[in-house]
Amino acid sequence: MQHTFATDLTSALYTDMYQLSMAHSHFNYNRHNEQVAFDYFYRKQPYNGGFAVFSGLGEVLMLLQEFKFSSNDIDWLHNTGFKEEFLEFLRGFRFRGTVYSMREGEVVFPQEPLVRVQGNLVEAQLVETVLLNYLNFQSLIATKAARIKLVARGATLSEFGLRRAQGLGGMQATRAAITGGFTSTSNVLGAKVYGVPAVGTIAHSYIQSYKEELAAFRDFAKVNPQGCVLLVDTYDTLKSGVPNAITVAKEMEQQGHKLMGIRLDSGDLAYLAKQARQQLDAAGLSYVKIVVSNQLDEHIVKSLFDQGAPIDIFGVGTSLVTGKPDAALDGVYKLSMANNEPRLKLSENIKKTTLPGLKQVYRYHDSAGNFIADAVALDGECAPAMIQHPYEPDKSMQLKGYQSEPLLQPVMQHGSLLMKPTPILEVADYAASRLSRLTDEYKRFENPHIYKVGLSKKLYDLRTELRNKYKKDSL
Amino acid sequence: MQHTFATDLTSALYTDMYQLSMAHSHFNYNRHNEQVAFDYFYRKQPYNGGFAVFSGLGEVLMLLQEFKFSSNDIDWLHNTGFKEEFLEFLRGFRFRGTVYSMREGEVVFPQEPLVRVQGNLVEAQLVETVLLNYLNFQSLIATKAARIKLVARGATLSEFGLRRAQGLGGMQATRAAITGGFTSTSNVLGAKVYGVPAVGTIAHSYIQSYKEELAAFRDFAKVNPQGCVLLVDTYDTLKSGVPNAITVAKEMEQQGHKLMGIRLDSGDLAYLAKQARQQLDAAGLSYVKIVVSNQLDEHIVKSLFDQGAPIDIFGVGTSLVTGKPDAALDGVYKLSMANNEPRLKLSENIKKTTLPGLKQVYRYHDSAGNFIADAVALDGECAPAMIQHPYEPDKSMQLKGYQSEPLLQPVMQHGSLLMKPTPILEVADYAASRLSRLTDEYKRFENPHIYKVGLSKKLYDLRTELRNKYKKDSL
Repeated sequence: MQHTFATDLTSALYTDMYQLSMAHSHFNYNRHNEQVAFDYFYRKQPYNGGFAVFSGLGEVLMLLQEFKFSSNDIDWLHNTGFKEEFLEFLRGFRFRGTVYSMREGEVVFPQEPLVRVQGNLVEAQLVETVLLNYLNFQSLIATKAARIKLVARGATLSEFGLRRAQGLGGMQATRAAITGGFTSTSNVLGAKVYGVPAVGTIAHSYIQSYKEELAAFRDFAKVNPQGCVLLVDTYDTLKSGVPNAITVAKEMEQQGHKLMGIRLDSGDLAYLAKQARQQLDAAGLSYVKIVVSNQLDEHIVKSLFDQGAPIDIFGVGTSLVTGKPDAALDGVYKLSMANNEPRLKLSENIKKTTLPGLKQVYRYHDSAGNFIADAVALDGECAPAMIQHPYEPDKSMQLKGYQSEPLLQPVMQHGSLLMKPTPILEVADYAASRLSRLTDEYKRFENPHIYKVGLSKKLYDLRTELRNKYKKDSL
Repeated sequence: MQHTFATDLTSALYTDMYQLSMAHSHFNYNRHNEQVAFDYFYRKQPYNGGFAVFSGLGEVLMLLQEFKFSSNDIDWLHNTGFKEEFLEFLRGFRFRGTVYSMREGEVVFPQEPLVRVQGNLVEAQLVETVLLNYLNFQSLIATKAARIKLVARGATLSEFGLRRAQGLGGMQATRAAITGGFTSTSNVLGAKVYGVPAVGTIAHSYIQSYKEELAAFRDFAKVNPQGCVLLVDTYDTLKSGVPNAITVAKEMEQQGHKLMGIRLDSGDLAYLAKQARQQLDAAGLSYVKIVVSNQLDEHIVKSLFDQGAPIDIFGVGTSLVTGKPDAALDGVYKLSMANNEPRLKLSENIKKTTLPGLKQVYRYHDSAGNFIADAVALDGECAPAMIQHPYEPDKSMQLKGYQSEPLLQPVMQHGSLLMKPTPILEVADYAASRLSRLTDEYKRFENPHIYKVGLSKKLYDLRTELRNKYKKDSL
């Protein structure tokens, strides 16, 4: 028995068993070279919101390049009942498929394909699990981060969640938080891997390890004259913590230094921030910043500002890194082509019937650059001038005169990356620039406007045709 | 810039920045060898339930043995403003502390220490983040798994969650699900690492890759004569899927094989399971099992059985592996001793004031072996014959005549493991045996009985004394 962190997490065993069982069957019938296409999409906006931020692509692409079975993996698979020839085939397995994708950081909507994987039946199927695992989670967290940023009024946002994150997923939570607009993290390994600042102050235990709070503050400030943030709520925030921080700030001034901030981590943050600000300002310390942490989310950040709390920096943990209250994005990966024929998955519920064929997504914007609607069309179609409502046959929308851009671009061809990985801070910039083009009514928390994603007539008709055909066949 | 999975996740950089900032300060004042103790405990039962299952210890202990900074880590830390001597100290850093812990799989309750870490200020603080990250998440998931098992009436439970898990945390979710009573997983790498069976059937895409459902079933069954489970809801469960599965099962019988089961993954599972069971039984296939999946949790599993659904195997995904709706356990790590003096963290709220000193937890049971109450006592005390309510001075409980056992045992001494890691299936057995000794009223989902965790009089008095002292000091 090994342990998780001593395991090669890039192994192609990071998949669901049925992917291997199906591959085994396809191999047995010599169908493993049949060409297929799958779409990655999701059905419901997280947090009852009006948008999501697509995240995780960079990691998926790096992984697809590494995705293989080690000799040790193959040895282990000998105990699972697969035929020897199939295991030999797996020994040589590499992902050599072609991938089209939206740019990482794109603002995205339900039902539209975000990634399209084309390849043989085995490779396209084996990567399903890891693709869903990475994209679902990171998109969930990047979206949460973006929602917090929307109401942060320019305040600095730091990710503080590693201790409450879902195990090793905490690393990817840091990555996604940066994508959505956080600019630093408490997670030191995350800071190293993703190239962002690691930040942190002191814990209550540091102060408790001294006999007196003032002595603890003094010692810490002396060692950290730059970027010093003092935690002021260990004993009594307004009677002890803030006055002691003021004493130390004044002493720092005499040494030519400036206290960077104080941190509030408990109690009524709105009230305490206002009172602390008054005390600091009265002492001539208007430059000292107020940092708050403790069970924050987008609703609390918004409420703190609505109450007029003078907060400069937010440290956000649990809700951000676990994507509360959703905890998961419902992204799926569905077959759209096999043997050059478009396929769909029927459902009693038309909303769960999938969109057949190779597809492109066009985004339309007005002259100010604001996003108007998205069209899902068949690959090769130009941007349609009219889109159909996906479920209501009588509803359509004219898009004549709007400019459009195709969102799905080739990112990997026959297993080779077509571009260098995008640094995560560039991804974050892209997400911010795209979000700025989505108007406020789509971004509000309560009953957001629903962004229109329609189908081209050709795609709509193809779906209808295939539904009718499959329904007849299955009777 | 690297990527998450290409990173050594055992690095001591897997911590919060403030742990390093505090260590830097302690080192600077030559306090880094001061001896301290910390307790790991949590405050609130997950899922509004009456118990939790302690999980993740095995991984924490393995990690503590590996926990160090690589040369590359130290090089990177040069950019973070720490002094050269401190970085040299970190270069030689190893965890050499002593750890007391409850057994992994123990049934546990709020406020009582589950783990005690004793060591110097630096080592005890640096491991806080990873300890919380591993234990909070795995205990959350093991508890969810145990809750599902409670209502599963002996049905087989498989973990199916990797695609919706929180990134790499999905690996640890598999481990914790096993701890709580699941016996197999769809996660192939998890199966390999943790030594449990990998299970899986087929996806809708497999059936869609054929022109006809029956042909798909036939081909799959031929390659998988053992353990074959057919997914029957791609087109129409009762009109197409189940009849086709029956045809294939009859054909398998002629080859001397038996279809293992059918899987329902959509629709009204209670209704479909009953109807499918009738069709199978009418065809003389009473041995064919019914497997269900699709958005299950403990409440749905319970409801399915309450409705009389004849289900043999449950595949549980999202809710299990993300610990919905909680998504995080609120476990914390608090200083209890420094320089041989007991410490506590004050709070306006007595419930958030921590328990000072080195402590032991005693569990009492009646003559039938059922758990009665736990006592938190000072280390060295015998099991007290009476416990105090932790917050209500007038309430106490007599425990005379009950047998007791100490729950905290040494597991690591000066950085060396005192025992071999426990295989995860043994941990699961222990969890099951302990849960069987907790009576039903603590295990029900609605308003469970609150298990009594009291304090010894000595501990109660010590907390009172320190509270009064600190309060006076801070005024």
